[in-house]
Amino acid sequence: MDAGTRIEQALQGAVTRADVAGCPPGLAAAMRHAVFPRGARVRPRLCLAVAAACGDDEPALSDAAAISIELLHCASLVHDDLPCFDNADTRRGRPSVHRSFGEPLAVLAGDALIVLAFQTLARVVHQPQRLALLVTTVSRSVGVPFGIVAGQAWECENQVDTVHYHRSKTGALFAAAATAGAAAAGANGEPWRVVGETIGEAYQVADDIRDAAGDAEEIGKPTGRDAALGRPNLVAELGLVAVCRLDQLIADAIAAIPACSGAADLKLLILNEAKRLLPPKLAQHAA
Amino acid sequence: MDAGTRIEQALQGAVTRADVAGCPPGLAAAMRHAVFPRGARVRPRLCLAVAAACGDDEPALSDAAAISIELLHCASLVHDDLPCFDNADTRRGRPSVHRSFGEPLAVLAGDALIVLAFQTLARVVHQPQRLALLVTTVSRSVGVPFGIVAGQAWECENQVDTVHYHRSKTGALFAAAATAGAAAAGANGEPWRVVGETIGEAYQVADDIRDAAGDAEEIGKPTGRDAALGRPNLVAELGLVAVCRLDQLIADAIAAIPACSGAADLKLLILNEAKRLLPPKLAQHAA
Repeated sequence: MDAGTRIEQALQGAVTRADVAGCPPGLAAAMRHAVFPRGARVRPRLCLAVAAACGDDEPALSDAAAISIELLHCASLVHDDLPCFDNADTRRGRPSVHRSFGEPLAVLAGDALIVLAFQTLARVVHQPQRLALLVTTVSRSVGVPFGIVAGQAWECENQVDTVHYHRSKTGALFAAAATAGAAAAGANGEPWRVVGETIGEAYQVADDIRDAAGDAEEIGKPTGRDAALGRPNLVAELGLVAVCRLDQLIADAIAAIPACSGAADLKLLILNEAKRLLPPKLAQHAA
Repeated sequence: MDAGTRIEQALQGAVTRADVAGCPPGLAAAMRHAVFPRGARVRPRLCLAVAAACGDDEPALSDAAAISIELLHCASLVHDDLPCFDNADTRRGRPSVHRSFGEPLAVLAGDALIVLAFQTLARVVHQPQRLALLVTTVSRSVGVPFGIVAGQAWECENQVDTVHYHRSKTGALFAAAATAGAAAAGANGEPWRVVGETIGEAYQVADDIRDAAGDAEEIGKPTGRDAALGRPNLVAELGLVAVCRLDQLIADAIAAIPACSGAADLKLLILNEAKRLLPPKLAQHAA
């Protein structure tokens, strides 16, 4: 089964847990809206790719790790879109969760998705040692001091440390995706952290470029929001130097891949993914 | 060391993890505000009491279980107080988190506290089998389909199932407190579930009574809010029959205690706790 299918099936299985009598139907619908239809699923695909490179001897655990990270990503999008943050009306080309279901259910759907990430991990019961590592890795990437929630909280400070902001808000979950993929397959996750962090940084640079130069229709959310909201944005700081930076980051990520049975395949996969990071027009322009 | 001291020390240790360079100071302060100064700590004390009754052979794990549940409780209070839910200005006699730190940091502090619960559990690394059980027990009590987030989401439905509402919103975390206390000590948690659920129901009945009849100064939050917000409230449905119901629930909880070395001590503890559940005037009136 290909990675994309594994991810969608596992996400369906997780979200379906809310579809039972006694669970408020509005909450279940809001959670489903937040997770489907699929986004790029960049993080869980990275997680499964690293697991595959490390042998993937416990696919159920790899799947759980991969989607736990995607569920946390979806939760962060739901909360980031709230009126008190980005006040975004749309996400992935559709109304955001709070626009569709109201603010209370958006807050709760985000909360429930965070918890669902850990419920999903804990369901894989036959590898308790690996599970403990995964709960540590995944929770660290979301919480304090350096997870995505901490990254988002930098937007509430008067003085923003741009490096910590990006490393926490985007890098942490990518680092966790790579580390957790290795850990799910019984490998040492730590050498993979830098691979995930570097890919995360590449993704952030690409996102900033798309936000500044992209086309709203192409990426399915309003663009120019960073500028409108006065948020830190690498393009604003560095101009189109960012496009070269992106290429360098991809090269760095590939160079950082630890020795493993699937290194060559993983390298190809990352190069193919990198091609999709820029809007077509800009990619042509840069080439 | 007494249970209260263990809980406060463990909570201090957990919350202090946000106090490092590179973590946004506003988020750390908001989390601290949500957890301290102490509330009644009813749930973690129940957890430690059950752990003690079962032998408490891994105190670090019992502490982690107890405060993971308290952190989740604190997170739920922060989010429940938000303008889109109760819009509560005060909590425990002080400004609520969103009144003190703004709505964005209140959303994020709640998120970070949810995650901190799992970070705290995962730090106790030498009992991975028990840890796996604890992550399952604790996550189930917060998420879908029947955890506290689902309970809160019933308030967004047009038709509320009062039984599911109370069981999820209050009972779930009490059930987890009892179950997790046993599991942390290596005992079978399931027979303890009904003890926790029954105590949770007693606590909810007492809370409803206090909301209807209590004194705002005495309980440190605005009273009469259930009526003002049109929320399900057992007192409104049953009148003062609720006071007798409370006594019955305490008796039921004690009768449900499974055979264990510390059963007699636990029974005394529950009876002592029960005395503190009603406002003094009402307790005199009922007696």
